[in-house]
Amino acid sequence: MGFDNDKKVALKKIIEFDKSKKGSVDKPIAKLVEDINSKNDFYTTSSCSGRIVLLAQSETGKKHKADCIFMSHSKISLKQVKDALEKLPKNQVWFRFEPLILHVACRNIESAEELVKLGRSIGFKRSGIQSTRKMIVEICSTEKIDTIIAEKGKLLVNDSYLNILVRETNKKFEKNKEKIKKLKI
Amino acid sequence: MGFDNDKKVALKKIIEFDKSKKGSVDKPIAKLVEDINSKNDFYTTSSCSGRIVLLAQSETGKKHKADCIFMSHSKISLKQVKDALEKLPKNQVWFRFEPLILHVACRNIESAEELVKLGRSIGFKRSGIQSTRKMIVEICSTEKIDTIIAEKGKLLVNDSYLNILVRETNKKFEKNKEKIKKLKI
Repeated sequence: MGFDNDKKVALKKIIEFDKSKKGSVDKPIAKLVEDINSKNDFYTTSSCSGRIVLLAQSETGKKHKADCIFMSHSKISLKQVKDALEKLPKNQVWFRFEPLILHVACRNIESAEELVKLGRSIGFKRSGIQSTRKMIVEICSTEKIDTIIAEKGKLLVNDSYLNILVRETNKKFEKNKEKIKKLKI
Repeated sequence: MGFDNDKKVALKKIIEFDKSKKGSVDKPIAKLVEDINSKNDFYTTSSCSGRIVLLAQSETGKKHKADCIFMSHSKISLKQVKDALEKLPKNQVWFRFEPLILHVACRNIESAEELVKLGRSIGFKRSGIQSTRKMIVEICSTEKIDTIIAEKGKLLVNDSYLNILVRETNKKFEKNKEKIKKLKI
């Protein structure tokens, strides 16, 4: 029966209301998600606070066929990465930092437009309305790291370069955090 | 005077109608852009067919302060990259592949929704309506390469790794092309 009922149903599934596979909200954005869900015109349908992943990709490169061999939603150390890479798969391994991604159901086109405008003004440059039927807004930015680091069971980079990737990832986690702070809905 | 007039004005500035800095449409999508502009309900406001860039970043990391030291809208060779890196700046240099990005003005919310739906179904996963006032749809995907390759005037990677980046970039150019082919508006 419209937005209010959908929201009620969504928030009732307290643990499940975040549709992402992990089934819960990442700690760094727990407060933000709570704030959004407390507003009359919005509720979140999925979220990721930002993460580093090491992905063992299938030959076709299809994301859903990729195995995640390491994931963290907070800053990382070289040791963590090295440990994760101890047993290398035969597939390509990609080192990927992904910034915040947030899906928010909005009451109407006006609230959706308002949210997109806010997101883009803060620097979430890939924000937009994904669907006007379900009125879902995606908040997303462009700050990524995405590169191949292993294939055929062999590392392609040395520790010194891995350490630079770790350093740059941690910088991006910091920037991502600063941007999230500004996201006051 | 509404959509039709805006479109007329936009298309009149034949050379300028693409708002990107380069002031013209990239060859790999010239036909696509022409097709879109021939439709009653759409016209493009900016576009990039997909590209590899080597960016010398400012210390703040702000994109608009970055110097582009190399750019190509088609497949590249190791030699091209090596030549571009001959004189290294002191700033960080990032190797970046960016897939197609397209901004399309739509007649109304229905045509905008239709375009987003098409884009997302083909795999342009970051597609959405950016503004319902101007009714602009952004078509964009997630297939990137984005990594640091130099800093303080020194290369951080060897030729063998650069060659792998070149190979993976060329693969992504190919995938990007296949996806563009499917974008029949």
